[in-house]
Amino acid sequence: MIYQKEIKLPAFRRGFHLITDFVLKEIHSQFPEKGLLHVFIHHTSAGLTVNENYDPSVRTDFETIFNNLVPENLSSYTHTAEGPDDMPSHVKSALVGSSVTVPITNHKLNLGTWQGIYLCEFRNSPHQRKIIATIYS
Amino acid sequence: MIYQKEIKLPAFRRGFHLITDFVLKEIHSQFPEKGLLHVFIHHTSAGLTVNENYDPSVRTDFETIFNNLVPENLSSYTHTAEGPDDMPSHVKSALVGSSVTVPITNHKLNLGTWQGIYLCEFRNSPHQRKIIATIYS
Amino acid sequence: MIYQKEIKLPAFRRGFHLITDFVLKEIHSQFPEKGLLHVFIHHTSAGLTVNENYDPSVRTDFETIFNNLVPENLSSYTHTAEGPDDMPSHVKSALVGSSVTVPITNHKLNLGTWQGIYLCEFRNSPHQRKIIATIYS
Repeated sequence: MIYQKEIKLPAFRRGFHLITDFVLKEIHSQFPEKGLLHVFIHHTSAGLTVNENYDPSVRTDFETIFNNLVPENLSSYTHTAEGPDDMPSHVKSALVGSSVTVPITNHKLNLGTWQGIYLCEFRNSPHQRKIIATIYS
Repeated sequence: MIYQKEIKLPAFRRGFHLITDFVLKEIHSQFPEKGLLHVFIHHTSAGLTVNENYDPSVRTDFETIFNNLVPENLSSYTHTAEGPDDMPSHVKSALVGSSVTVPITNHKLNLGTWQGIYLCEFRNSPHQRKIIATIYS
Repeated sequence: MIYQKEIKLPAFRRGFHLITDFVLKEIHSQFPEKGLLHVFIHHTSAGLTVNENYDPSVRTDFETIFNNLVPENLSSYTHTAEGPDDMPSHVKSALVGSSVTVPITNHKLNLGTWQGIYLCEFRNSPHQRKIIATIYS
């Protein structure tokens, strides 16, 4: 059985943001006893990943480290028409990935104690991002 | 229901290449009303990701940025017997990943307007890469 | 049909380790003729990926390159209370990802000749990591 739902997230500022509760609120009632949840983001300048859900300083340092990994304004870049944050945002999105898949067990998301789902917003201006949740059972 | 097909891609030169149409041509007729498409690459020096499908300059800059991220010929590398592009290609493949999973909705791949599937060829010499497409419905 | 099993891995030292055989031993008897295997790690300072399964020098260089990508002890880090290896381990985990999905064909994992599943242990002290294997058929 497959259940699928399109979810519009609120616009988040540039950075890494916990969205587990947004996602759960929309689809939790559909969780099977056993299955998988796949969440896919419809954009190429933002990404999804699973990471630490407790200390906000982790998300702050994620932003610092990703900016170190893919610097803006290098003279070798050719795709510059959409602003200095655009091309780095595409690469950052490929590094974290555009989807996450998480097991469902006993009608609950089977995440570790310290795990949550991150929306990674790589553009300077906040965007309302669309995600597609698909549940398999 | 599961449908699975092995697909041989044409050999691409080193770089990032859109393969959405190659994949669709082979399996589009099997798309269910709702489901997921999983595409897996059978190699460890190439990868798959989802990213910008319109401006070729994005794919050019992907190559530049990935070469900055994982430089060739560092003296600290020990796995050098297969050429300077080999070890970096393994790491780049881990960074983008060896598979992508994309929702299927209304018998179509549910990608965003600007999204396509990339083959990331990290070796200097073009290779014919094998991918396994699995459709869930 | 869905089969799901929680697997406790032995504690590995910091680095990249092949765990294909550990995983297969636990769930191989459940492999369908066609399907997918999803493996998810319950932690945010370790990751999973698919890569080269033959030459140990590849795994050695993975450790070198990931340490270059995400250096320890940068003065810009704020999440430092759990040791210099902690924050970099979260980012490395996001770079490789917390799960892998691999096709199953003819009751076998459909990996390429040179592919294996890696546990990526990013902490200095060995941890016993929990993974959730889910089989779809």
